[in-house]
Amino acid sequence: MSTTTSILNRLDINTELATRILMGFIQDNIAKAGMKKAVMGLSGGIDSAVSAYLSAKALGPENVLVVRMPYKTSSEASMLDAESVIEDLGLPSLTVEITPMVDPLIERFPDMSRLRMGNIMARMRMITLYDQSMAEGALVMGTSNKTEFLLGYSTIYGDSGVALHPIADLYKYQIRQLARSLGVPQAIIDKAPSADLWVGQTDEDELGFTYDEADQVLYLLVDERYTTEEAAAETGFSHEFVSKIWERVKANHYKRTMPNIAKVSRRTIGHDFLYLRDYTGRHGSV
Amino acid sequence: MSTTTSILNRLDINTELATRILMGFIQDNIAKAGMKKAVMGLSGGIDSAVSAYLSAKALGPENVLVVRMPYKTSSEASMLDAESVIEDLGLPSLTVEITPMVDPLIERFPDMSRLRMGNIMARMRMITLYDQSMAEGALVMGTSNKTEFLLGYSTIYGDSGVALHPIADLYKYQIRQLARSLGVPQAIIDKAPSADLWVGQTDEDELGFTYDEADQVLYLLVDERYTTEEAAAETGFSHEFVSKIWERVKANHYKRTMPNIAKVSRRTIGHDFLYLRDYTGRHGSV
Repeated sequence: MSTTTSILNRLDINTELATRILMGFIQDNIAKAGMKKAVMGLSGGIDSAVSAYLSAKALGPENVLVVRMPYKTSSEASMLDAESVIEDLGLPSLTVEITPMVDPLIERFPDMSRLRMGNIMARMRMITLYDQSMAEGALVMGTSNKTEFLLGYSTIYGDSGVALHPIADLYKYQIRQLARSLGVPQAIIDKAPSADLWVGQTDEDELGFTYDEADQVLYLLVDERYTTEEAAAETGFSHEFVSKIWERVKANHYKRTMPNIAKVSRRTIGHDFLYLRDYTGRHGSV
Repeated sequence: MSTTTSILNRLDINTELATRILMGFIQDNIAKAGMKKAVMGLSGGIDSAVSAYLSAKALGPENVLVVRMPYKTSSEASMLDAESVIEDLGLPSLTVEITPMVDPLIERFPDMSRLRMGNIMARMRMITLYDQSMAEGALVMGTSNKTEFLLGYSTIYGDSGVALHPIADLYKYQIRQLARSLGVPQAIIDKAPSADLWVGQTDEDELGFTYDEADQVLYLLVDERYTTEEAAAETGFSHEFVSKIWERVKANHYKRTMPNIAKVSRRTIGHDFLYLRDYTGRHGSV
């Protein structure tokens, strides 16, 4: 569809400018927290690769600790893709198998669904990264992009449990653009996106649509403030599909807000006691 | 000090009214999420006991699943205190030992500090509760109080990783008041508060001051909007002590906000794409 191509073109970014802005964001956040280092998971996928390239540029490769955290079913190819990033950038790295931490809980509830297992793995990786955060005095870098953040395609307190989000305002299409300009290995750019939580899982199979489709719809609804009817007309997708995407965004607002707090006093955290982070004091490290 | 007593008196709450408000909050949040049940950790301490009594009143005891999650160093007395709550309220309960999940990570980094171990335990309990949340269709109930929430005396994505906070607007002094009116066992009300993350740990030892001291200062600074000078004069505490408390509150604002997101587009999550939870669609359950 020619419409499709032209809508994706509207998402094109100036990769050089985006890189400069994101480097500044990373430097600023790490410095204000009184730290020098970042720590992040490296899955072998494009999102964590882009985050690693940006972080290495911003902080120097020696200040970016990357952690590979395979489960026993994780693909060997992912491990090798991650390795290619580590070698290309010359990053300090660790491999921590999460299998021995994950399996005791799965064995305790042996009929658990694949989704429950996937959530346990995502959260176990958060634990491992936060532990290294404290050990190394490093901030945990998020690797979520705007598409999955809007769709809520993430595990709360798992992959979304981070200290800062450098690439969460970039759609998957834009992540690919940035990846090419940063020199991310082509094999990583080309492969099918996967959370690699079970064998053969791909994001697009699980979501039921492609990232290119979702990106067009989300861009029009969110960035351009189209109605669902207008977005359907412009993209040529059915109104049913556009609505399904939007319902998913709405149903996942809860993942983008702090938990609700019951108000019983004059000044309540999250209601009328509201402050942004404060960098004047010493930063707590838990 | 007579001043001290009179300041604590200003924190007195109408326990009947507070109970009614908090029951409504719990009922409302669970129903809007399309659920009937809550799941929560039961440590044997006063905060989780109060949350359990309130939840049982609000939802019916059969809809409150409590989980005991001891580590091998957890005190036997805590397990028995938790048991007394389970029996008194007639709650469905589970015991999930976290030792086999925690120890592989500790063994991987054998010289880790006690604080790192404590954080791993707190987060492993979050994982266990969220797994039960999905298994049972139950929301994860927080058990943090206002004192510890303000002081940042919590583990990010650990004990603070919950779906809703029923008692986070009540100071520890007020939690004790509420506990008495709800009929929480006296042994639980009387014992020294402890995160029980290592043997002999008590909150007040670790914090370096008592909850009664912190509550007076926090109440004046937060609820009454006193300056640190005014709070020192009114309580009779040194200005140094009051400032130390306030610095701690400020240094922990980051635990009460979502992670920073780098802005590169016209509409960015957390900047200008801001929505409260939406209950009109089906609630995602991860």
